[in-house]
Amino acid sequence: MTAYLAGLDAGTTRQMADYTATHFGWTLHDGVATVVLNRPARKNPLTFESYAELRDCFRALRSATDVHAVVLTGAGDNFCSGGDVHEIIGPLVSLAAPDLLRFTRLTGDLVLAMRACPQPIIAAVDGVCAGAGAILSMASDLRYGTARSKTAFLFNRVGLAGCDMGACALLPRIIGQGRASELLYTGRSMSGEEAERWGYFNRLVAPDALLGEAQAMAHQLRTGPTFANGITKTMLHQEWSMTIEQAIEAEAQAQALCMLTEDFRTAYHAFAAKQSPVFQGR
Amino acid sequence: MTAYLAGLDAGTTRQMADYTATHFGWTLHDGVATVVLNRPARKNPLTFESYAELRDCFRALRSATDVHAVVLTGAGDNFCSGGDVHEIIGPLVSLAAPDLLRFTRLTGDLVLAMRACPQPIIAAVDGVCAGAGAILSMASDLRYGTARSKTAFLFNRVGLAGCDMGACALLPRIIGQGRASELLYTGRSMSGEEAERWGYFNRLVAPDALLGEAQAMAHQLRTGPTFANGITKTMLHQEWSMTIEQAIEAEAQAQALCMLTEDFRTAYHAFAAKQSPVFQGR
Amino acid sequence: MTAYLAGLDAGTTRQMADYTATHFGWTLHDGVATVVLNRPARKNPLTFESYAELRDCFRALRSATDVHAVVLTGAGDNFCSGGDVHEIIGPLVSLAAPDLLRFTRLTGDLVLAMRACPQPIIAAVDGVCAGAGAILSMASDLRYGTARSKTAFLFNRVGLAGCDMGACALLPRIIGQGRASELLYTGRSMSGEEAERWGYFNRLVAPDALLGEAQAMAHQLRTGPTFANGITKTMLHQEWSMTIEQAIEAEAQAQALCMLTEDFRTAYHAFAAKQSPVFQGR
Repeated sequence: MTAYLAGLDAGTTRQMADYTATHFGWTLHDGVATVVLNRPARKNPLTFESYAELRDCFRALRSATDVHAVVLTGAGDNFCSGGDVHEIIGPLVSLAAPDLLRFTRLTGDLVLAMRACPQPIIAAVDGVCAGAGAILSMASDLRYGTARSKTAFLFNRVGLAGCDMGACALLPRIIGQGRASELLYTGRSMSGEEAERWGYFNRLVAPDALLGEAQAMAHQLRTGPTFANGITKTMLHQEWSMTIEQAIEAEAQAQALCMLTEDFRTAYHAFAAKQSPVFQGR
Repeated sequence: MTAYLAGLDAGTTRQMADYTATHFGWTLHDGVATVVLNRPARKNPLTFESYAELRDCFRALRSATDVHAVVLTGAGDNFCSGGDVHEIIGPLVSLAAPDLLRFTRLTGDLVLAMRACPQPIIAAVDGVCAGAGAILSMASDLRYGTARSKTAFLFNRVGLAGCDMGACALLPRIIGQGRASELLYTGRSMSGEEAERWGYFNRLVAPDALLGEAQAMAHQLRTGPTFANGITKTMLHQEWSMTIEQAIEAEAQAQALCMLTEDFRTAYHAFAAKQSPVFQGR
Repeated sequence: MTAYLAGLDAGTTRQMADYTATHFGWTLHDGVATVVLNRPARKNPLTFESYAELRDCFRALRSATDVHAVVLTGAGDNFCSGGDVHEIIGPLVSLAAPDLLRFTRLTGDLVLAMRACPQPIIAAVDGVCAGAGAILSMASDLRYGTARSKTAFLFNRVGLAGCDMGACALLPRIIGQGRASELLYTGRSMSGEEAERWGYFNRLVAPDALLGEAQAMAHQLRTGPTFANGITKTMLHQEWSMTIEQAIEAEAQAQALCMLTEDFRTAYHAFAAKQSPVFQGR
């Protein structure tokens, strides 16, 4: 049994303490990772290399045992300007169908990896949040923004459709079909105030406090029952296309599993002793 | 044919006029039932017994011919504090997987019974509305609340996942995926003002007027075309996981059925005579 | 190849420049069609004939190569009062089940045709927007309204269910399940202010400016990448009942297709030359 578990660990778990990234910033403190898109002179555009490395990073997080929440942000005063015009859009113009599909699948795989890792992801959005950058904020679990931020699904402006990396599925579920339609058809910016009012941002924060507030929330989630948080994320993801009957049965099974964790016992005993529980994520 | 109908009635209809409940309050006036969670000293917690009796009550309502709307509320100044810490959480800590699944399926069955009965359910929410109590408000059709109410999906606080009794399916459909995610990951309270602004509460009402307003809405619905109301409820429930094409065909059939009711004829003739229709629910 | 394309065109494309309508107003300027429900003395009710002609018109738009956006509005100061009491509800009261289903399928087919044509539809809603009229606004892609407008899904008031022409599927996706439930159970009017606050209207406009603003937005969309806009519409429609994984793969394919259009190349070259792109819809 121990040998089996060791084998399981070898295959399915990893530590991220020594992880390093080439195309974005990565720091890890006390179980909270901060991913920083960091080419501020160009408002943190994405490139083929950063797409692939971000995808690999979030795929690794699926197996990580020392990361329990992620903050995703941009360097300088901007979140992300999307696919770089010169490094991505230029080359795409010359590609044939199979290569284009390889690229769009790569970008979709990044969203899938963000949804499939168990860690809640908190996007901290200031300034420009455009195109694929807007998608990355949307693929996060929570979003903190600033009043001056501008979030634009601007695919339409470059001759493309609004259906990029899951936008036509995800955005209506966050802000409703009517508002999502306007943003996707026109590519116009959603202001910070609109984003809060429409349920896109969970909170508006002053620019100077933005990263700190996002990290504080990440630390709060990290001290919660992290195994259960991962199940919450999985179920929020899975249940959109279930019937209500299927969803209720799926949750009955998932919650029964969580009731077998130490964290559940810990919470009960702490409550009985009028103390605060200290969760272990198991 | 009459004999057949009598047999059908014997098997599938019942009267609730003489129904009595042990673990919650039950009153029935003029087709409107009021269910009161009534252990106010402990803020109306749920127990194994009240879960089961509530499930059986809503299952019975599926066949009831003398109940056309339901108000669900709590005694004192609170709605419901959720599963009782001592009577539910304590015992659960010691159960094995099969028994835990039996419990989580019981709680899910209550939500299913609330969704499967044809009567619209109006939750009247004051004070504490927490855990499984928040779920019961969510599983209702309409929600009236007070400014001072606090609705918290606090499963995370007791070491569990947010996926309880259908929460990850139902809550995003009411308030959107982003806001639902925050409430389910953190277990924080949603204020009455937030609940109204986010579409969770249909209306904020002063505490003293809350039950009366909810019952007034229930009576309004009860004087409407109650057979058609039951079809509305069924379709709102069923269509979430249909394609738009399937939904439109399903509605074409359902509405054609309603067009064959006396209530539809009644409405037309009342309109032609410039009178108000008196619906019979058939 | 040219012969093949000519055959394809003969079968699948058409020009709407010479289209004329009997039961509603139709104008076409510079690729933007304006459909006007135009029996203002009765607040623009729908009849069997106008349902069928509207369905045929939107079906024709699916193949039209000279229409790239549609504005849908009503004459006078009202949008549409729904199915005419005398010309529709009266006859329906006497019909048998097969004929009723034929009617409800006709009305559903109009919604399907509106969703299946590639042109974004902008509803310009003033005054009364009731019953089937409310459905037509809901089946549009964007909605501009006035503060004084009253949108009512009043099926309940005439003894019917709220499930009409897809309402139980579409409305919750625009304004959320709780608010949709109230409107569908009660038939009450949603005010212009509520409609904007809840995400039903994209914008509130002064009555005198309403049609002009809707047409201005239609012209803006018409000068965008119209092939891509049609793909956006298709995907917004299709992805509601997909899993997130299916949606992301579907978008990878759809966006790869758009990356092979002239419009995408045009946008890139215009950007590189610091010019505004002129899209051709191909």
